[in-house]
Amino acid sequence: MPVDPHAGVEITAFSQVPPPAQGLVRDLRVRWACDEIELPYRARLMDAMAPRPPEYLREQPFAQIPTYHEGGTHLFESGAILLHIGEKDERLLPRDPAQRGRAIAWLFAALNSVEPALQALFSIDHFYAGEEWAKLRRPGAAEFARLKLSRVSAWLGDRAWLEDRFTIGDLMMITVLRILNYNGMVENFPNLATYVASGEARPAFKSALDAQLSALCQHQLADAEI
Amino acid sequence: MPVDPHAGVEITAFSQVPPPAQGLVRDLRVRWACDEIELPYRARLMDAMAPRPPEYLREQPFAQIPTYHEGGTHLFESGAILLHIGEKDERLLPRDPAQRGRAIAWLFAALNSVEPALQALFSIDHFYAGEEWAKLRRPGAAEFARLKLSRVSAWLGDRAWLEDRFTIGDLMMITVLRILNYNGMVENFPNLATYVASGEARPAFKSALDAQLSALCQHQLADAEI
Repeated sequence: MPVDPHAGVEITAFSQVPPPAQGLVRDLRVRWACDEIELPYRARLMDAMAPRPPEYLREQPFAQIPTYHEGGTHLFESGAILLHIGEKDERLLPRDPAQRGRAIAWLFAALNSVEPALQALFSIDHFYAGEEWAKLRRPGAAEFARLKLSRVSAWLGDRAWLEDRFTIGDLMMITVLRILNYNGMVENFPNLATYVASGEARPAFKSALDAQLSALCQHQLADAEI
Repeated sequence: MPVDPHAGVEITAFSQVPPPAQGLVRDLRVRWACDEIELPYRARLMDAMAPRPPEYLREQPFAQIPTYHEGGTHLFESGAILLHIGEKDERLLPRDPAQRGRAIAWLFAALNSVEPALQALFSIDHFYAGEEWAKLRRPGAAEFARLKLSRVSAWLGDRAWLEDRFTIGDLMMITVLRILNYNGMVENFPNLATYVASGEARPAFKSALDAQLSALCQHQLADAEI
């Protein structure tokens, strides 16, 4: 269990998030990577629904989570943090240069070629559902998300992972595909559903999700006691 | 001039693109990085407006450009390619681990925290302008893009670059900010306008843009002669 209040690695995460985002917030990616290599970390929690303190913008210029602090290394962006953690341990990022490059290509692909389309649909469904533009745009946004899923599915074929073995590229892609957990679109591609389930079956994923949800639950309990 | 038909590095780029995309297509990022460190490359051109050959999906799973080939290394995603090129030369990516991490954080931030908002506005203005949803959505999309610009501007302050010196993080951020070249929103933040101009003034940027536009012009001329 790598959550350790005395760990040298500190990440930021949320103590409170709206229900649709629970289990999806991006600190999950970092917790998962840490758990894969038994890297202890401590979490500094903030309320997602409260304004971030102004000084937090010097730590995270976009007022988002997670950040990552380890000695003189101060990182933001879940992609950059996964790469940093991957470089610590071959289990997350192959040492062979060609294989390493492929893992990193998928890390970027998940964030730049897949996530924006899936996030746009998620936002329409959860944050803008009542707005006229969202109703008109939804079919096109769903089709664009479906196209992206079809591209990943076609690449994946009957393989277990995007390349020969599990890497930070898979870790990121699986967390991105989980954005659509609520609507069944991933399940229309059986190989993608199997792929996501394979990721979620990893002990490190489970312990990371438990740690994320536990932080939320404890905080809600504390609020209830006030 | 690093474009060299006999170079060991090959990238893919477009020979034809719609006018709004000219000078913005993502091979520019790779050409610019190569030019910064005098890394010779050759370009394999494809028509953006024609269907990609099916076999190209094994090379680029999302049917996009650029790809990058160098010996046994086969990459896609402009972010992954910039990181690979950066690792060749300290002029693009510092060797100090803490500074290296910051450059990589900005590389991801440009692609995942800034580009999706700017690209959404660009798409509304160039690809969906006649649609009702686009008219209704535009104010919100413009406000979201403006928020992202304000975050980068607040971080940048009066510095020349995002961190102490030019890196692949700046190279990527500047190409992302240029997506809004057409509408003057960046110019509302004078420090961002200066920042983009500083990037565009670099000899390597100019030669990269020339090479990209030259590939387009030569192809159009060839078409005209047919």
